[in-house]
Amino acid sequence: MKRDLLLTFNAGSSTVKLGLFEIENGQAEPLGSGILDLREQPLELVLRTDVERRYPLTSKITEDMRAVLGEVLQHLDDLLDTGRLIAIAHRVVHGGDRFDGPVLLADDSRKALEALIPLAPLHQPQSLRLLDALHRMRPEVFQTLSFDTAFHRSQSDIVRRFALPRQLHDQGLKRYGFHGLSYKYIASVLDKISPRAARGRTIVAHLGSGASLCAMLDGVSQDTSMGFSTLDGIPMATRCGAIDPGVVLHLLKKQGPDAVEHLLYRESGLLGLSGISADSRDLLASDRPEAEEAMAVFTFRIAGEIARLAVSLGGLDAIVFTAGIGEHQSAVRTSVCAQIRWLGVELNDELNLRQTLRISNSESRVEVLVVPTNEEQVIANEALEVLHLTLPTAGLASLD
Amino acid sequence: MKRDLLLTFNAGSSTVKLGLFEIENGQAEPLGSGILDLREQPLELVLRTDVERRYPLTSKITEDMRAVLGEVLQHLDDLLDTGRLIAIAHRVVHGGDRFDGPVLLADDSRKALEALIPLAPLHQPQSLRLLDALHRMRPEVFQTLSFDTAFHRSQSDIVRRFALPRQLHDQGLKRYGFHGLSYKYIASVLDKISPRAARGRTIVAHLGSGASLCAMLDGVSQDTSMGFSTLDGIPMATRCGAIDPGVVLHLLKKQGPDAVEHLLYRESGLLGLSGISADSRDLLASDRPEAEEAMAVFTFRIAGEIARLAVSLGGLDAIVFTAGIGEHQSAVRTSVCAQIRWLGVELNDELNLRQTLRISNSESRVEVLVVPTNEEQVIANEALEVLHLTLPTAGLASLD
Repeated sequence: MKRDLLLTFNAGSSTVKLGLFEIENGQAEPLGSGILDLREQPLELVLRTDVERRYPLTSKITEDMRAVLGEVLQHLDDLLDTGRLIAIAHRVVHGGDRFDGPVLLADDSRKALEALIPLAPLHQPQSLRLLDALHRMRPEVFQTLSFDTAFHRSQSDIVRRFALPRQLHDQGLKRYGFHGLSYKYIASVLDKISPRAARGRTIVAHLGSGASLCAMLDGVSQDTSMGFSTLDGIPMATRCGAIDPGVVLHLLKKQGPDAVEHLLYRESGLLGLSGISADSRDLLASDRPEAEEAMAVFTFRIAGEIARLAVSLGGLDAIVFTAGIGEHQSAVRTSVCAQIRWLGVELNDELNLRQTLRISNSESRVEVLVVPTNEEQVIANEALEVLHLTLPTAGLASLD
Repeated sequence: MKRDLLLTFNAGSSTVKLGLFEIENGQAEPLGSGILDLREQPLELVLRTDVERRYPLTSKITEDMRAVLGEVLQHLDDLLDTGRLIAIAHRVVHGGDRFDGPVLLADDSRKALEALIPLAPLHQPQSLRLLDALHRMRPEVFQTLSFDTAFHRSQSDIVRRFALPRQLHDQGLKRYGFHGLSYKYIASVLDKISPRAARGRTIVAHLGSGASLCAMLDGVSQDTSMGFSTLDGIPMATRCGAIDPGVVLHLLKKQGPDAVEHLLYRESGLLGLSGISADSRDLLASDRPEAEEAMAVFTFRIAGEIARLAVSLGGLDAIVFTAGIGEHQSAVRTSVCAQIRWLGVELNDELNLRQTLRISNSESRVEVLVVPTNEEQVIANEALEVLHLTLPTAGLASLD
């Protein structure tokens, strides 16, 4: 019997990541992954299953994504019969206060997504373009939405408030937090790795080209470093992280809002600090003082954010490093942990270099873990959850 | 023999505070204080020595402050012979990277002040108006400048950097920190109060209508919550404190930069959070949930900042509360300290209510102190320092 297929779309600011899943006994089993880099010309689709295949695309990105997506689906057909496709599951950056979990794409949820564009003007329209094109191409395929903000809806109102007039809060100017799918994945696997980290006061550092931290109590989000937008918190590859609002006002005396927005999103962070590269691998490999300085600011700010977030937990039992930098750059973990040794954090240098699951030494009051994240798995799992809940009578054999 | 007089001017955004000092054995001995509230119409000068006297002024605030200051000096003459005035010492908000200590007002220092206007567009022009008017009225009187930023010049470059392009840092877009005269005063008296707080890892919480925190090691500033402007850090009476830069960009889509600036400086903070009052005394007295919420956000953010700043100290030995709220509102201290109990902070409730110097209990790993600040005394002391150093041969009998 042929198994149903499920495809995940994770549209970032510059790439679309694909996840290929087969549904087996009601579980989403990974078959492979793909990536479409939107910055490259001509576009190239990379698909990885047991081997990696590269497909140059002839179409260009336009408002209507059908041509590009048509090519993508066609190449997918080389690998697997997309006639078996039952659902496409999307990561959506902003769910506002409207979405506290995944939903099926329908008229009302699509309208709600559109209403959230002002909260995520760079990301949300990209998601809508994808959804709309796929719906027109494959109307029989279910689409589901998984939100980066939903995991943080458990946070208290005190944590979410900015010190702004109340009516602005009521209009949506509050802290939402992001990277929720990554945090949800980590929370879901911690039980098998460390009951103490799973049940205790745990801070997860999701350090990728976008980066944030999340304070969890018993696996539930209490606080996070990102706020209203994806700019806040710690410095990122090209985003500034938290800066004095007076700096933004000062910059606006010389440049228009669009130029300032570009500066803060695209020219700041590690790239701005170093003047060399947005990629921490380049900076760690460089012997230039600017590179060292950029990494010192980066790790100083992460350490500070860990200490700040511990207030929302009333202390600290575990730290989890995840995502590209968190999983692979031992020097970043060393530097961060050295700056919070006074909180009872003691790394085992050898384990840290080998990046085993547990990298703290046995005396460490705080457990330090390295756990690979998997947003695609969460998106796929959430899709199955939605299909189960909303389509109990759909008679899909594979969903039982 | 008649003693020389020294007057301090502490020009804030809405008031000018005066300090009246007599010079005795080379020390500045306080005689009294005064305040000129610039928001009131007609202006009223309040002078306090052994008694309080109120003088309505007939002049109005204009670009040329001479009429108002003429009245001020005339009323001062009722109390003490201003013919004995040897120096007027000013608090200046912004010394940029140019000033790491007090200086005599002269052509070069005045030019440097003017060059710093872009860094403090609201405060610096006010200081210049005062200096210029006093110079024209009493050219024989020395004027000295004490800077709110100078105390923080000991901070490392890593702490002072924003994650912005390097050339912006080089152009002055960096963290300066403020309330330095208050922190300097606290550092100067800690030795007599607690050698541990004086020599150790100490965080001073200057909580007034403007508010910030400073992390000191051995009395030297290592980090502070305020950054480039006086907006950053914890929420204040009407200032927002740290907010996501994305919020500022979002607000700019609907309003111009001046309206956003006014919103963040004048309508946010405790006033914005509560919708009731900018004064924490009103909020603590109110039984409305918005008042409680505003104070909860305020103390949560202070607690978070204390934990963050402790990273720059490698731990925490002492916390000092000072300025209006810090010295007088036991409920704020209770709430802040409860949220950082996990850092080893244990208040003695009775001592906290009585606001004795030491309010932690004997088991507390972290010492908690309440120390009244006195910026005027620092301004006066710095003036004498400057006069001693720059005028060694001036033959001023009182200066030896």
